[in-house]
Amino acid sequence: MGSCEKKNIEDYIISIPDFPEKGIIFRDVTSVLQDEEGFKLAVDSLQDLLKGMDVDVIAAAESRGFIFGAPIAYNLHKPLVLIRKKGKLPRETIEQSYDLEYGSAVLEMHKDSVKPGQKVVIIDDLIATGGTVEAAAKMIEKLGGKVVKMIFLMELAGLKGRDRLAGYDVASVIRYEGK
Amino acid sequence: MGSCEKKNIEDYIISIPDFPEKGIIFRDVTSVLQDEEGFKLAVDSLQDLLKGMDVDVIAAAESRGFIFGAPIAYNLHKPLVLIRKKGKLPRETIEQSYDLEYGSAVLEMHKDSVKPGQKVVIIDDLIATGGTVEAAAKMIEKLGGKVVKMIFLMELAGLKGRDRLAGYDVASVIRYEGK
Repeated sequence: MGSCEKKNIEDYIISIPDFPEKGIIFRDVTSVLQDEEGFKLAVDSLQDLLKGMDVDVIAAAESRGFIFGAPIAYNLHKPLVLIRKKGKLPRETIEQSYDLEYGSAVLEMHKDSVKPGQKVVIIDDLIATGGTVEAAAKMIEKLGGKVVKMIFLMELAGLKGRDRLAGYDVASVIRYEGK
Repeated sequence: MGSCEKKNIEDYIISIPDFPEKGIIFRDVTSVLQDEEGFKLAVDSLQDLLKGMDVDVIAAAESRGFIFGAPIAYNLHKPLVLIRKKGKLPRETIEQSYDLEYGSAVLEMHKDSVKPGQKVVIIDDLIATGGTVEAAAKMIEKLGGKVVKMIFLMELAGLKGRDRLAGYDVASVIRYEGK
């Protein structure tokens, strides 16, 4: 904001040790958003990952994925489809459970949110183990859609989400080697 | 999408009786988002409510507020600040509790997200009783910010949120007379 130097997107991210629990380094995206240059750079960098692609639908994962999915859907003039935790969507849904470290969780999408044959991009702020996005992809495919790309602002490469998502086109703006 | 007639934003909203509980008519915003024309119209109509205003910060309420706050912050080249439920923000926060029908809930914002003297717009998808946005405004004011406007895609006028928010500049795109 006050600086004359051009900053990289990484420079806007604050890393917080031991949040939400000990041993985790939390990569805070709110520090990117709350700087207008950081936010613009983040959205533009993500959107650049889709350059030249033929896309029908932007699907965004609750809730930080909404922050990037919404401006990109708006900019590209595409529908925005929500991937939400169970119980938040009011109409008929399809659901998919996925494993967490302890236990499991369930995601939902509206049944009419993706139509057969549509080319869908999934957007989230972060890829860690890839469990959320894998569950989202399964739902999209059950609805007949094709997941043409998965894009993330940040990637925790040490958690090997890309291995789990082998077969998908995965791209991230910032790659952290650790967990 | 396939229609040649120009639709109003209201036409994209599906109303669902008895969700999430009996007696409530849920106004579903996902049906707006999942149509590219509906989504564009919703964002543009909200953004028009800020025309000519001097604004420093866009504050958006979890989580459907993010969907509209993010593209508007991007379009206006402003910082996007998150109003979240307790426990989601990793850095030092300010918090504010507010009453629900049964019990209460707590919202948080990062302490560094609004600076003294900044002019802040609060965005959410819906105003019902106004409890969430009132709590958000209190936090912004404690941080020294000035809430210059509160904007909503939908207003449930029968719940009298505007009375609760007397003294603030409140605007909505769509007004439903009921609850």
